[in-house]
Parts: sequence; structure tokens; C-alpha cells
Amino acid sequence: MRLRLLLAAALAAVTLCRAVPGLAQTDIVEKRIFEAGEHRLRSGATLPGLRIGYQTAGTLNAAGDNAVLVAHFFSGNSHAFGRYAADQPPGYWDAIIGPGKAIDTDRFFVVSSDTLVNLNVRDGRTVTTGPVSVNPATGRNWGTDFPVVSMRDFIEVQKRLLDSLGVKRLALVTGPSMGALQAIEWAAAYPEMIDRVMPVIGTGAVDPWMLNWLDIWEAPIRLDPNWRNGDYYAAGREPPLAGLAAALKIVSVHAQDRPAMARFGRAVPEGQDPARRLGDRFEAERVLDEAAMARARASDANHFLYLTRANQLFLNDYPSTEAALGRSQARWLVIASPTDRVFMLDYNRELLATLQRAGRPAELLEVTGPLGHLNGVVGMAPLADRIRAFLTAP
Amino acid sequence: MRLRLLLAAALAAVTLCRAVPGLAQTDIVEKRIFEAGEHRLRSGATLPGLRIGYQTAGTLNAAGDNAVLVAHFFSGNSHAFGRYAADQPPGYWDAIIGPGKAIDTDRFFVVSSDTLVNLNVRDGRTVTTGPVSVNPATGRNWGTDFPVVSMRDFIEVQKRLLDSLGVKRLALVTGPSMGALQAIEWAAAYPEMIDRVMPVIGTGAVDPWMLNWLDIWEAPIRLDPNWRNGDYYAAGREPPLAGLAAALKIVSVHAQDRPAMARFGRAVPEGQDPARRLGDRFEAERVLDEAAMARARASDANHFLYLTRANQLFLNDYPSTEAALGRSQARWLVIASPTDRVFMLDYNRELLATLQRAGRPAELLEVTGPLGHLNGVVGMAPLADRIRAFLTAP
Repeated sequence: MRLRLLLAAALAAVTLCRAVPGLAQTDIVEKRIFEAGEHRLRSGATLPGLRIGYQTAGTLNAAGDNAVLVAHFFSGNSHAFGRYAADQPPGYWDAIIGPGKAIDTDRFFVVSSDTLVNLNVRDGRTVTTGPVSVNPATGRNWGTDFPVVSMRDFIEVQKRLLDSLGVKRLALVTGPSMGALQAIEWAAAYPEMIDRVMPVIGTGAVDPWMLNWLDIWEAPIRLDPNWRNGDYYAAGREPPLAGLAAALKIVSVHAQDRPAMARFGRAVPEGQDPARRLGDRFEAERVLDEAAMARARASDANHFLYLTRANQLFLNDYPSTEAALGRSQARWLVIASPTDRVFMLDYNRELLATLQRAGRPAELLEVTGPLGHLNGVVGMAPLADRIRAFLTAP
Repeated sequence: MRLRLLLAAALAAVTLCRAVPGLAQTDIVEKRIFEAGEHRLRSGATLPGLRIGYQTAGTLNAAGDNAVLVAHFFSGNSHAFGRYAADQPPGYWDAIIGPGKAIDTDRFFVVSSDTLVNLNVRDGRTVTTGPVSVNPATGRNWGTDFPVVSMRDFIEVQKRLLDSLGVKRLALVTGPSMGALQAIEWAAAYPEMIDRVMPVIGTGAVDPWMLNWLDIWEAPIRLDPNWRNGDYYAAGREPPLAGLAAALKIVSVHAQDRPAMARFGRAVPEGQDPARRLGDRFEAERVLDEAAMARARASDANHFLYLTRANQLFLNDYPSTEAALGRSQARWLVIASPTDRVFMLDYNRELLATLQRAGRPAELLEVTGPLGHLNGVVGMAPLADRIRAFLTAP
């Protein structure tokens, strides 16, 4: 599988760097925290102590106009590029971000941050504000008293981070999947400060079909008796891990494609007999269930619910995508995976058509591979030259 | 929407028949019950009192070789054609089955039956044997003590029904979705008695991707605390309606496509505010939730679990689709919907390739429309001439 190959290649690269004296590791990045204090959400609600994690690479120029913002996918975080230590794996888009790479950190100041209500709140690397955070007014976790946040709120937090760093213009705003939605929301919110937009495996509209899929994703959490309407943080209470794992499994299967799991065939684990016992499983189910449960332990169920809602609220301040992007002056490169089962190719073709009707320079490029939607996360290397050309065109 | 148009057309036809004296209604069918007594499953387990519902149209000829078997989809039953009364709606494939229609009941003896563990066990029209049935050994509902059944068991029950009716050969075995899987399982089990196979919106293999999707469909039931490991039939216990409704909603959304729900836009129901309250909903969610709950009340959660398992056990007696269909001597017409999100076009292309490699006459035809997978259930009328030609070719 490509994922395994990538991991193997990544490990080989680490070994090489260690083996060759004098070959310095240039891709170490540091996870930082942006303490923003009070933050007013678009709904009017106020967050008293906003903090999010972020990382940067490259150097901001004096004009503050060589910045690139990379926004992450649904289950991702700021780790788009670089390594936190020499023996750690690189970020998800490291193939296209770094010194001399397509998004060249010798030329651009690249920023990536954790969103509000980030899913990976328990992974030890993610810094976010959401239902798990402590509400200073009560001294307890917010739970579902946390205010609803929208995709636009994600952008407003990133805007404050960029302001704090001195960024004046974005040479590029980009990201895969939910990162593409954030890039588009940026283009709608701050058209005057953006040169280029590159939404990858995204959509220009969350339509009723997608509203319902997001609801399907989260339904298992609401059904888990341990969810207790979001009130499960008190000592002695179990979090709704089974529901969260089931939710994460839906996302995981939806975001892949048939070849990604073909190797399991119809194998049955030792001791299991699905043809005779209703509770028994196929190997393909067992492996995905275990992976989902491992991820559930690093995540939080309420954060999942807030995150799906933020996605449902994509471009929620505008009557249509056309209206939202009417003031964009950017160049656009839309990248889609033809085997994407989440944001199907049609969504991307419709976005392209909307941009072209508005007279924007826009192109659609396909990212292929065996992983469906996830081709846009782990299969971007072959598009490096096209992305470089997009960034260097006058 | 096409569904509404179809319903309107059906109502208009009923009105016309009533209005014109002497124009007899020729499409009345009767729901009958096949009492099969003891039945031995492929697993070796025995069902003591097997009964299933069925319906027929047309007349079996003396040779018993003009029969057509129509197998139903996941959430369907025997009602593929005709009406139970003049003021009742027609069956799901009535556009292509009936006197003078593509599957001509003036020429063929058409049979359709309810499967084992049928989902619609509480709709008042479905007769099935499954977890809701009473186990004569205990006098109580089987629940999850009911033995696991496979797609092949569905076929063996249908074989006994056909035997009881005097059927010697099948001029055609067909059905949409899970009905296509049954048609293929028939072609594998009884190749010597089948002239033609027409799988519609199906697949030739339930691969690891599909094994996991079937698991995703059922996960909400297992999470519902009212499920109680399937033991919810006793007086005073509530059935797991919330979990079953969530499961049925996944099936419903998966089996449709974007245009099917486009009319809801991003409307918000009166009094709801999803941008401010986590529990509030969009109209598109509310409508699908209500439809799913209405269906849940006519269904049974354990039957859902057994039905997904039977689908996972498709062609489970064979090492591969190629091996399963190696003895088929039939002509094949594979019909697929290009916007199918369940059994994607690729599944059907692979089935076609398998058949062609085996030297079988086989053709792939597309059924189009706004409903994705369901085009193969409600959008078949435009293919009538092609199906007629397939059935009349020498």
C-alpha cells in the first residue's frame, strides 16, 4: 500500500540523515501555542481563553506578503510539514512543503494551525479550544455548553494568528478536505489579501447530501449511552469510546476506496466464524475496528460533534457559493480525486464552473491513487511540479 | 422528483381504470404464504417452521420452463409488480413487469418472494422467518438465538418455493441491489436450470470495502442501549428504534444521490438554529430522520443485523466470483447506475469482465436518473425495450 511505502520511505530518509555525518536535518519544526485571550465568535458568543497550536517554516519577508496558510483535514492537525524530532514521522503534506519543494519554504513563510474543536485533543501534540477545555466560569470542562462554532470561526482564529505573526498577504491558502473548505472560506472572508487558492479534495458547497452524511458520521456518538448528552467528563464516568470509534470508522472507510483494503480479502480471524455466529467478524472489519478504537482514544466525542457542525456551517454566512466568492481576485487551482467517495469529483467540477462563471482564472487537476479521498492527503507528490508552476506563474 | 412523478402517474392510472366502465384492472396480485415446514440451512442448523410470503403473475406452462424469479432489494419485499387492491400502489418494478410489459406476464410466470429475515416484518404485508419469529422450542421470539443465514440460504428457500409451484427452469432470474446478489447466487447454485441472469445495481463480489460498509450500516443498532444484545421482545421492553432509524437513514442516504435531496437546500426548520444550538437540525436532516423513523417502526433491528450478515455472506461457499460462476451457461445482462454510491459502476464492470473471461454472453447497460443507486429500483422504465430484447433474443 502507498501508505506503507510512504512510511518506509520516510523511515529510510531518517536513517540516511543519521548515517551521513554533516548532512543536517533541515526539516525540524516546532509546535507553538498561540494564546489569544478572549475571542468573540461569529454567533456573538465569547470564548474567554482561546488557545491553539501552530507551526511555521521559512521566513516572513519585510512586506509580510510571502505567507502560505495550510489548513488541515477533518481528523488532522497543524502537522502538515516537517518533523518534531529527527526520529519522528513527517507531516502529511511533507512531500510538497519544505526547502526546495513545491511549496518552497526557502521562498514562503508557511503557517499551519490546529483548528478550534480539533478532534485530536488527547494525542499530546494538538492544542485546541473546545468542549474538553475548562470553562473558567465553572472550573469544569465545557462539554456541550461550549458554543457552536462555524468554519468561518476557524478562519477568524487563523486571521488573528496571522496578524500576530505580521502576515499582511497570503501568497497561497490551501489544504486538503476540510482544509479546502477553510481555504474557500478564507477566499470569501478576506478576498483582498489572497493571491492564490488551492482547495484539494474539497467542495464549494455543503449541500443537503453532505449535511446528511455529516449527520451519519456523528450518529453513533449520540447513540452511545456513555455520551450522556455530552456530560461525560466527571470523574468515574466513561467517555463514549464505542460510539466515537464507530464514528471514526465511518470517516475512515468513507475517506478511502476499495483498493485500500483489498488485501484483507474475505479472510476470517482465528476463532471467528461469521457464517455461524452473529457477533463474529471478518478480518477486514476487525482491522478497521481496532484502528478506529486506537484513534478514538486520542480523540474526543464532543469535539467530533462540534467539528461536524462546523463543517455543516461551511459558507453559512452567504446565500450561495457564487455570492461568497464574488469578490475573490485570486487564481485558483482546484485539485480533486476521481475516486473520492466523500467530496466527489462533481462537487469540484461545480466549484470550477462557479469560479469560471465569475471570470476567475481557475483550473481543475486530478490526484489519483488507490486511496480515494485520501489521495489528496498522502498522494500529492506527483503533482509537485504543477503546484510549483501554479505558485511561480506571474 | 421522479418518485413523486411516479406516484402521481400511478394514482392517475388508478383513477382512469375506475372512471372507464368495462376497463378491467388486470394487475391485481395476491400475497400468498409458502409454509415449508422444517428447513435445513447451509450451516447445518435447522429452522423448525419456515414460512415466507410470495406473489405470482402469469401462468406456468406445461414444461414448467417459462418462469421468471424476481428477488428483492435490501429493504424490499415480494411486492415487485402488481397491486394488492385497485386503490393500492403498484410494486417497485411494475414499470417493467406485467401484461405486455418488458417482463411480459402474458408470456412468463413471474414469481417474487419475501426473503428470510426480511426487514419489513412489521409492515403487515411481509411474511418472513427470522429473529422476530417464535421459536417453538421456547415459545418466545428467537432474537439472536436465530441461526445466521446466508444469501445462499435465501436461494435454497426460493428453490423450495419454485419446486412447490412446479417450476423446472428459470427463463430469467433478476432483481435490483440485493436482488442482483440473489440472482448471481442463483446462477452459481443452479447453473443448469437458468437461461438468463439480469443483475441490476448489484455486485459480483462483496469485498472488504463492502464488508465494512455493511458493518457501518448496522453499527447504530448495536450502540442503542435498547438493543440489549438482541433481547428486546419481552413485554415492557422498548425496541432499539433510534438505532434502527439511524441504520435505515444510512442506507437511505447511501442509496440515493445528491439531486434526490437538493430541494431542501440549506433550509432550517422553524424554531431551529443549528448555527447556535448543537442539538438543532437542518431541514434536510429532519426530513430524512422522520422518514427513517417511520420505516423503523415497520422493521425490526435484529432482522437488520441478520440481513447485513446474509449480504456479507454473498457467494461465501466459493473461493471467488470466477469459481462461483464457472458453470453458468446463461446469457447475462448487467445493469448499473453510473451514480450508484453503494455498488459503484466499477463493481459491475468487474462482474462483466469476469463473465466475459469465462466466455459467457454478457452485456453492461446503464440506468440513469437523479437517484443514484435507486435508479435501478424506480428508474427502469426507459430500459424496457432493451430488457424485452434480452428476453426475446433466440
